[in-house]
Amino acid sequence: MLGISPKRKETDKYIMAKELKHMTKRAENYSQWYNDLVVKAELAEQSAVRGCMVIKPYGYAIWEKMQAQLDKMFKETGVQNAYFPLLIPKSFLSREAEHVKGFAKECAVVTHYRLKASEDGNAVEVDPNAKLEEELIIRPTSETIIWNTYKNWIHSWRDLPLMCNQWCNVMRWEMRTRPFLRTSEFLWQEGHTAHATREEAEKEAQTMLHVYADFAEKWLAVPVVQGVKSETERFAGALDTYTIEAMMQDGKALQSGTSHFLGQNFAKSFDVTYLNKDNKPEYVWATSWGVSTRLIGALIMTHSDDNGLVLPPKIAPIQVAIIPIFKGEEQLKEITAKLQPVIDQLRALGITVKYDDADNKRPGFKFADYELKGVPVRLAMGGRDLENNTIEVMRRDTLEKDSVSFDGIVDYVKNLLDDIQNNIFQKAKDFRDAHIYECENYEEFKEKVKDGGFFLCHWDGTEETEAKIKEDTQATIRCVPFMFEQTPGTDMVSGKPAKYRVIIARSY
Amino acid sequence: MLGISPKRKETDKYIMAKELKHMTKRAENYSQWYNDLVVKAELAEQSAVRGCMVIKPYGYAIWEKMQAQLDKMFKETGVQNAYFPLLIPKSFLSREAEHVKGFAKECAVVTHYRLKASEDGNAVEVDPNAKLEEELIIRPTSETIIWNTYKNWIHSWRDLPLMCNQWCNVMRWEMRTRPFLRTSEFLWQEGHTAHATREEAEKEAQTMLHVYADFAEKWLAVPVVQGVKSETERFAGALDTYTIEAMMQDGKALQSGTSHFLGQNFAKSFDVTYLNKDNKPEYVWATSWGVSTRLIGALIMTHSDDNGLVLPPKIAPIQVAIIPIFKGEEQLKEITAKLQPVIDQLRALGITVKYDDADNKRPGFKFADYELKGVPVRLAMGGRDLENNTIEVMRRDTLEKDSVSFDGIVDYVKNLLDDIQNNIFQKAKDFRDAHIYECENYEEFKEKVKDGGFFLCHWDGTEETEAKIKEDTQATIRCVPFMFEQTPGTDMVSGKPAKYRVIIARSY
Repeated sequence: MLGISPKRKETDKYIMAKELKHMTKRAENYSQWYNDLVVKAELAEQSAVRGCMVIKPYGYAIWEKMQAQLDKMFKETGVQNAYFPLLIPKSFLSREAEHVKGFAKECAVVTHYRLKASEDGNAVEVDPNAKLEEELIIRPTSETIIWNTYKNWIHSWRDLPLMCNQWCNVMRWEMRTRPFLRTSEFLWQEGHTAHATREEAEKEAQTMLHVYADFAEKWLAVPVVQGVKSETERFAGALDTYTIEAMMQDGKALQSGTSHFLGQNFAKSFDVTYLNKDNKPEYVWATSWGVSTRLIGALIMTHSDDNGLVLPPKIAPIQVAIIPIFKGEEQLKEITAKLQPVIDQLRALGITVKYDDADNKRPGFKFADYELKGVPVRLAMGGRDLENNTIEVMRRDTLEKDSVSFDGIVDYVKNLLDDIQNNIFQKAKDFRDAHIYECENYEEFKEKVKDGGFFLCHWDGTEETEAKIKEDTQATIRCVPFMFEQTPGTDMVSGKPAKYRVIIARSY
Repeated sequence: MLGISPKRKETDKYIMAKELKHMTKRAENYSQWYNDLVVKAELAEQSAVRGCMVIKPYGYAIWEKMQAQLDKMFKETGVQNAYFPLLIPKSFLSREAEHVKGFAKECAVVTHYRLKASEDGNAVEVDPNAKLEEELIIRPTSETIIWNTYKNWIHSWRDLPLMCNQWCNVMRWEMRTRPFLRTSEFLWQEGHTAHATREEAEKEAQTMLHVYADFAEKWLAVPVVQGVKSETERFAGALDTYTIEAMMQDGKALQSGTSHFLGQNFAKSFDVTYLNKDNKPEYVWATSWGVSTRLIGALIMTHSDDNGLVLPPKIAPIQVAIIPIFKGEEQLKEITAKLQPVIDQLRALGITVKYDDADNKRPGFKFADYELKGVPVRLAMGGRDLENNTIEVMRRDTLEKDSVSFDGIVDYVKNLLDDIQNNIFQKAKDFRDAHIYECENYEEFKEKVKDGGFFLCHWDGTEETEAKIKEDTQATIRCVPFMFEQTPGTDMVSGKPAKYRVIIARSY
């Protein structure tokens, strides 16, 4: 159960600059590179509890930036935040048949509510007299407890739409876990909306998909393919699952957010009706939608390189690091005096600036550290810059270094941040687009899919074909994409007429 | 286990204005008034899970305002946010002897990680083959898992201080619960800091106490007594527990936030040492500190009245409600055109304005609703106001209504909000101060304490005396207060020389 890591050596923490970035290269082992980077950049680490991670301050700061922006976007659509219980009565899960099938196998179950001292007094054990009448499940998702609550909130058409979101932790007992991508406990938001009509609920599910896509592309600089899932890949209890699929640098897909049209399934399971304008009772229509700390994984794997994280300026906890290069306190004072107005002006523009004048680390170490942490812009100023009225500017995305005039540096940095945001999005998009292949031949597909990429293929719509592709290649149908035309064609596996044109890929 | 509330009738939701405020009066039954108000003002409700509440959107909006301000104040002291696992290995709890005694009796215990279909297929049951090797506890507080993590983060004096906070849910299996004041699950923040010296840790515990007091008084307008707890009332595992104690309108105390000096207890239990400047290992010194959704209870019980909530402007989700009183669309347009610049100007000042021009509710209903919800300032404008260039202003704290000139209304409202913030703090402080009694006679104390109030008494410092007072009167020693002088005196119960001068009160 417990895997407590051995104590790190004192020296580990004060390693040299070159060691700081010593990690597996992407080309050697992409998967190991990711794991190394998560630890090296101090984003997260494994905890003493199987499959649960500790999100370290720097990783959490990225999550806070994501939360702040998403929360704003949700509220702009009329969604309100609320909080529902962590624990769900076991019987609630059974009420929606598909839902329980999807989640029962990976539930953390609370059976007792008290511990007592063991006989020798040195430990505690479960008190058998404190057994719950009905077991409680740590929420894997909250549709059941929320719809049981909505029953009392919804009476007439005037109570609709009802749109709540909660930011919380959820638990799914995953067997194989990886930091951010798949963990037993993770942080997420889950929106749950109730509507009077089918059309309105379907529209809401799509609206939230677009919010997610917008956020991913404009804030995380992660280009996504929007689409709808096949039946097999749907959320347990949904009639339709919409998804945003991002492509990682190894060509694999990462499902980065989903929005579900739940029909009247949960309303029927929890008996939630409303009186329509004709005073007749009708079942309520539902959606749910969520994104999680998995987005941090998407962010890392889309942009970062062998030198460390590359963060889009809009989501970077530190946007500009400024490092004075000085000998002695006198020179530091002089450089600081010159830089202070720039720091103030950048901050007044809402830009997060870290002025790092610590004298217990060498500039080279600081440079490497900010590179590793993905800080978009690094400025450095030394004695020669003072003389020449210049400043050194390094942009993290391209690692280009320039000596530029000190005059106008504020505007320069402001524009550079915009430029970096656009550039890393464009780079990721170019990569993604270059790895989308139209494919009509299964033999060719099987060979090519090993190297990653999104495959735009015709599918006959049967589960058999879907299962065969997965068995042969580990690839799955990611979605019926909205960005590509639904042309007629022939299923490459069965040879039957196609029902859909889909994106197939290996995925995380 | 389950207590699903019966479905409310359709009419409930569209009750008349007078019914809206129909609830128990404080003078009749203070406790019932509180319960009624929590429900009527749509702050929270009981969930289907014993002792766990649903925090409704309006209640959650108050919590979000509190979070935003506290988070800012924490970060200004150098604290960073992070996230640690929900589940704690059972064995961790036993490591600190006092800690386990304090929390073992009210723990939710996870014993299994899977459900399976029951034989008839209609339900799910715990899968006996999915029993955990070691049970996991839902965190009642996170000292143990965090210090087990800190062990790997702290090596030398250069790693200190380490100051993390997390916003999360915790679970304590309380037998008798009340919304916000005492629930099995609640939301809180818990700060955990590590320091090189005893002095630094003690100072940090006090600094955070002052942050809490400052927040309570300046933002919640809740006056508090700062002090230190007696040994009996200390946090399980602490050497000193600092507290802020607020007085409710029934004279009872509400412990509203605590900050603990933990000494080296957790460092010793989890073997957390650092190398000091002489390269010698030493145990780390610790603090922890937390406030919870209980603060919402403090807020309600300090200021609200028989008409509903009274919220301090700085924490109110809606600060100003503006209601046009119109007949027909034409007049509405005219009023809106007149009000729009005011709305814009107020919002530009950072003031949250709700312009309520809904035509499906009468103005009287809206007035009552905003009163119930504690919106600090209500403006109303009708046809006569248009003619006279006036506007009606109602302040929630005093319920005073005024017709004022429309010119300069923005400044008027801005000043009024400040005035309300100050006024409700002063009112609460006057009430509190009028109910602090010096008392040296136990018979008098026993009689008087029934009516509530804080009693400033001399105490001999023994557990026996403390226990006797509690048994005789249900009152407890709240703290050794910092705001009163530690005069010499005689214990009113034992007649022995006093060790401390303390505040004694009944409490929530």
